[in-house]
Amino acid sequence: MTIKKKKKFYEGKSKILYETENPEQIVMEFKDDMISLNGSKKTKPVKRGAINNQVSAHLFRYLESFNVPTHFMSQLNEASMLVRRLQILPIEVLVRNLATGSFAKRYGLKDGEVLEKPIVEYYLKHNAKDDAMVNQHHIVAFGMATADELKIVDRYVTKANAVLKAFFIRRGMKLIDFKLEFGRYKNHVVIGDELTPENCRLWDAETGEKYELERFRHDPVMIEKIYTEVKRRVFEKEGERV
Amino acid sequence: MTIKKKKKFYEGKSKILYETENPEQIVMEFKDDMISLNGSKKTKPVKRGAINNQVSAHLFRYLESFNVPTHFMSQLNEASMLVRRLQILPIEVLVRNLATGSFAKRYGLKDGEVLEKPIVEYYLKHNAKDDAMVNQHHIVAFGMATADELKIVDRYVTKANAVLKAFFIRRGMKLIDFKLEFGRYKNHVVIGDELTPENCRLWDAETGEKYELERFRHDPVMIEKIYTEVKRRVFEKEGERV
Repeated sequence: MTIKKKKKFYEGKSKILYETENPEQIVMEFKDDMISLNGSKKTKPVKRGAINNQVSAHLFRYLESFNVPTHFMSQLNEASMLVRRLQILPIEVLVRNLATGSFAKRYGLKDGEVLEKPIVEYYLKHNAKDDAMVNQHHIVAFGMATADELKIVDRYVTKANAVLKAFFIRRGMKLIDFKLEFGRYKNHVVIGDELTPENCRLWDAETGEKYELERFRHDPVMIEKIYTEVKRRVFEKEGERV
Repeated sequence: MTIKKKKKFYEGKSKILYETENPEQIVMEFKDDMISLNGSKKTKPVKRGAINNQVSAHLFRYLESFNVPTHFMSQLNEASMLVRRLQILPIEVLVRNLATGSFAKRYGLKDGEVLEKPIVEYYLKHNAKDDAMVNQHHIVAFGMATADELKIVDRYVTKANAVLKAFFIRRGMKLIDFKLEFGRYKNHVVIGDELTPENCRLWDAETGEKYELERFRHDPVMIEKIYTEVKRRVFEKEGERV
């Protein structure tokens, strides 16, 4: 069965969404263009779209194999996948295993300090201010999700983190933190969006090298290295590393 | 039995704490001096200490009558009370019924907007930055309280809010928001600190007048009015108001 892309209904910094003949399914196409964070110039890291699509597909499949549901249905071609159309919860969910960046600064922790337990944080998705952190009380009072949905989100986030942390450490990388989005599909809450070098912060477990796009926004060589290296590790076969 | 104040072991902006002969009990003395928020001058609003002590004692007794445990034991004299010595949890718990001030700004809400459900927020108590909001994951990972203790805190906060909101509305005042502290006493979590015009934001239910010390930090007349009026309302007998 071939899937036909129909109307484009959303275009963001890294993805374009298209309707299909089935109102419950959409095509998610990952873009190659990369606009530098100050908006001044476009760069095209090699195969950014293809790498983001393939890494996401692989990690979504992997999570599904542990009974963590996602919107992923199938890979369509190099840079696009078929996903379930979700009613997205307007919150960003961050999971942190180590303190770094603004988080370490905010709480006076050392950069690289291991957290005793993973920390899950919630932020408003559509907010002009970066610091609009919320907790479950805000989310429920603002009508963004129910208390029951948040319990499920919390369970899936915690499980996804445990599964992915172990996945990456077997490939020589520490999963420092990552961002998830969730949505409703037929009354169920599932993981949406993507899982790519763009929303996962990874450090090399041996050398400590930081595979963080944020750090290298003006360094096309490093940006390319990060995409290529993360993809290589994700597709490394178990047991290749001793 | 007379309680003897012994060693002073803490002095803050509004209270002095003294040890007693019993290591599990302390004397909490409420100060009259008020240092203006910019630290430039001291003012003495009339009987600030006595009002804070009496209002706190009354509200603590009231909460206890609804089975919400506090550190309060007995009133000793005009400006001091005997309380249980707690191991204070290093978090500030805010409960909000209406959006106002920095909270309304942060989430783009209208000043005075009623929240669909009360919102409970947690902040670090000893943090240089004002914006160190945390959720239960941070608190547990930082070792500040256990997940079980936080469930109890959440239950007591929600109940205290319902009880106090109803108490104030019968006295013609809306409880907009207030701040609580909690501590451990013999393996139980109870409410500590104070309940005064200094940590409760109240608005007149009819006129909308705002009894908020923060707003009038440079206006000694209003400051005195707020203390006097809040005390008068708290001690108003049920049924005096129709």
